[in-house]
Amino acid sequence: MTDEPVSPSRRGFLRSTALAGAGLVAGAASARAAGPDPKITEVQDWASSFGDAVDAAPYGSPIRFESHVVRRNVEWLTESPVSSINFTPIHALEGTITPQGCAFERHHSGAIELSKQDFRLMINGLVEKPLVFTFEDLLRFPRSVTTAFCECAANGGMEWGGAQLEGCQYTQGMIHNMEYTGVPLRLLLEEAGVNPEGKWVYAEGADASSNGRSMPLEKAMDDVMVAFFANGEALRKEHGYPARLVVPGWEGNMWVKWLRRIAVYDQAVESREETSKYTDLMPDGRARKWTWVMDAKSVITSPSPQVPIRHGKGALVISGLAWSGNGRITRVDVSLDGGVNWQPARISGDAKPKALTRFHLDINWNGEEMLLQSRAIDDTGYLQPTKDELREIRGLNNVYHNNGIQTWWVKADGEVENVEVA
Amino acid sequence: MTDEPVSPSRRGFLRSTALAGAGLVAGAASARAAGPDPKITEVQDWASSFGDAVDAAPYGSPIRFESHVVRRNVEWLTESPVSSINFTPIHALEGTITPQGCAFERHHSGAIELSKQDFRLMINGLVEKPLVFTFEDLLRFPRSVTTAFCECAANGGMEWGGAQLEGCQYTQGMIHNMEYTGVPLRLLLEEAGVNPEGKWVYAEGADASSNGRSMPLEKAMDDVMVAFFANGEALRKEHGYPARLVVPGWEGNMWVKWLRRIAVYDQAVESREETSKYTDLMPDGRARKWTWVMDAKSVITSPSPQVPIRHGKGALVISGLAWSGNGRITRVDVSLDGGVNWQPARISGDAKPKALTRFHLDINWNGEEMLLQSRAIDDTGYLQPTKDELREIRGLNNVYHNNGIQTWWVKADGEVENVEVA
Repeated sequence: MTDEPVSPSRRGFLRSTALAGAGLVAGAASARAAGPDPKITEVQDWASSFGDAVDAAPYGSPIRFESHVVRRNVEWLTESPVSSINFTPIHALEGTITPQGCAFERHHSGAIELSKQDFRLMINGLVEKPLVFTFEDLLRFPRSVTTAFCECAANGGMEWGGAQLEGCQYTQGMIHNMEYTGVPLRLLLEEAGVNPEGKWVYAEGADASSNGRSMPLEKAMDDVMVAFFANGEALRKEHGYPARLVVPGWEGNMWVKWLRRIAVYDQAVESREETSKYTDLMPDGRARKWTWVMDAKSVITSPSPQVPIRHGKGALVISGLAWSGNGRITRVDVSLDGGVNWQPARISGDAKPKALTRFHLDINWNGEEMLLQSRAIDDTGYLQPTKDELREIRGLNNVYHNNGIQTWWVKADGEVENVEVA
Repeated sequence: MTDEPVSPSRRGFLRSTALAGAGLVAGAASARAAGPDPKITEVQDWASSFGDAVDAAPYGSPIRFESHVVRRNVEWLTESPVSSINFTPIHALEGTITPQGCAFERHHSGAIELSKQDFRLMINGLVEKPLVFTFEDLLRFPRSVTTAFCECAANGGMEWGGAQLEGCQYTQGMIHNMEYTGVPLRLLLEEAGVNPEGKWVYAEGADASSNGRSMPLEKAMDDVMVAFFANGEALRKEHGYPARLVVPGWEGNMWVKWLRRIAVYDQAVESREETSKYTDLMPDGRARKWTWVMDAKSVITSPSPQVPIRHGKGALVISGLAWSGNGRITRVDVSLDGGVNWQPARISGDAKPKALTRFHLDINWNGEEMLLQSRAIDDTGYLQPTKDELREIRGLNNVYHNNGIQTWWVKADGEVENVEVA
């Protein structure tokens, strides 16, 4: 037995590897050229020189080969990039955690730079004792840790009128999933003392838009968090440094960033962001409001329009994400034929309530075209609907809360297109 | 009710805020100057101008205010920075996930740049069908998702001879915790077909050191993964891009990076990394070997030498990490008096097997000095020992597997020092 880079014994078996190449059936099935592969039989440059030292990057970045895995925006989508959106590259990610560096952003007046020294959080309104907290104050309250998805209410919104944005990143990428650490909002409200007539909580950010949103006191006292940390480290500037609201299961617009004020009132404020925006315009011209919860949804992230099948038929990994603002994902079904037949996918890793859940289905692709779909089921028994089922009820005026089933048309050449099935 | 930045009503209650300042007992207790705080009463620059656009940073980085939260190395610790280690800033992190950007690195010949096109993984030795996989091949095998801590066997090693490195980052920072996605090694071994006489698996990296390590076939077939993704995105270069071994619960040196070869043998290779290194030199001069598992351990991350108490007495959050290579953390106790009295801490978030677990204890600090300690208990019933209990058995020759209880001396002025208690 030897560990020399190129040993006689190693050359010995490599002849059989060449033969074995075609024999890979259960998993990898690449047609490999016969004969030894120099990439493994010969000593490579990177095996005969030193790599980077440990002091090369005190804080590291992705390797240059992954430079395509970035947030992307669509310039024509909104009027100004400081009041716009970008999209998480969910087609290129795996597992359930979204790194902050490529987690989608939605700003109403841009991402502001607010230091911990300048940060103040005011609690006022119908409370016994109005308070102003410094950041240092907040660090002295008991902390909790929770993982939650944050989805923009308009995620998939372009799909109401039919597939308009090509690529999983654009159609469903206004979502991210992080592990947050912070103070339960309940503790801050209890510190101030909510008066009996206090029924609603209104949250404002320190940015110019303020992005004020109202929520019932019950939610504020339940699982809402004033978060400082995401995925273990401080919130990034664009995600609300130094503190933001985390509102598990509810639309992203309510996750107020650069948090500045929590006001307790006897009614909802009916601010711009919860009247002319973030309400669902129905066919009869009336706005459906208080649509806070993001209903159960799923999407196949690979294969998808940005991730065509390059390896031809045979073993194929179908990977996707499922989530529900109402609880835990209990099952995800996948269809290869546009919803005629369904088979259950594997849940990989944790299925936490109100958090992204990863599913996988391993198939042996026959090389013929497919209409890939997934549908999520949560622990309330809710089944993700089709887009047409949603349109029947909500019409086409609305851009919010489209949790309809997404269809990817996989062609025989492996290319994938965003389509709808009648 | 108004949302103007400075409303009459707002000025109204701020008078009471000033009074309320001193009344904060349950949580924040900062002595605040009397009178309105202009940081919240006056319109600030960041509330009257635009911030960054969504296209400002396609892949984001930490805000400049957090530039101190980085990996750090100790130059005198090893001979060369390409064969050295750096330390995770665990004193500044929260929750359980470690971002890749500040997760500690250990290299034996530096971090190499290996593209997916150049990557090959060979499986050979006592197998029916020796194989060479391309990266594309690996992507066609069923995937799993798991969260695991990776701890260098030498983490805390300087503590054998007494506290020698000041700061939680340096004493216990050779650890990180990520969510991995990849292929169970079992599936690759089954693809090659392990012969009956195959009892050990030997893993090699593509870097110059190769860092070869042996493990029993049972472990390889159990929970070992060939991982491509960490925290949702591709592995970073310094963490083994494009593929590394994940060996849950076992010492970090076995988590071979830039994976190149998996060989099946009838015995352990007894390579350099598992004989002259990564074995425990006992008092009688003999080396204790096959000390793969990282036993249950914990450390208080804040307060700690790099995180003194600046706010004086009153409400204090004690935060720390616990983990066990044998299973799940079931309890963490904290002592304020050097181990005389113990009280149970809160487990915050998940307590996953073989993964970092966050604990918190909220106390009302009387302003007197403390000897802070934590001790972890896992679901095997194992109790984290004291350093002296370990020394009694293993002596002082060894630098590996020190999971002894760490003591922080908190002084009356809030400064913290790494000490030992007799």
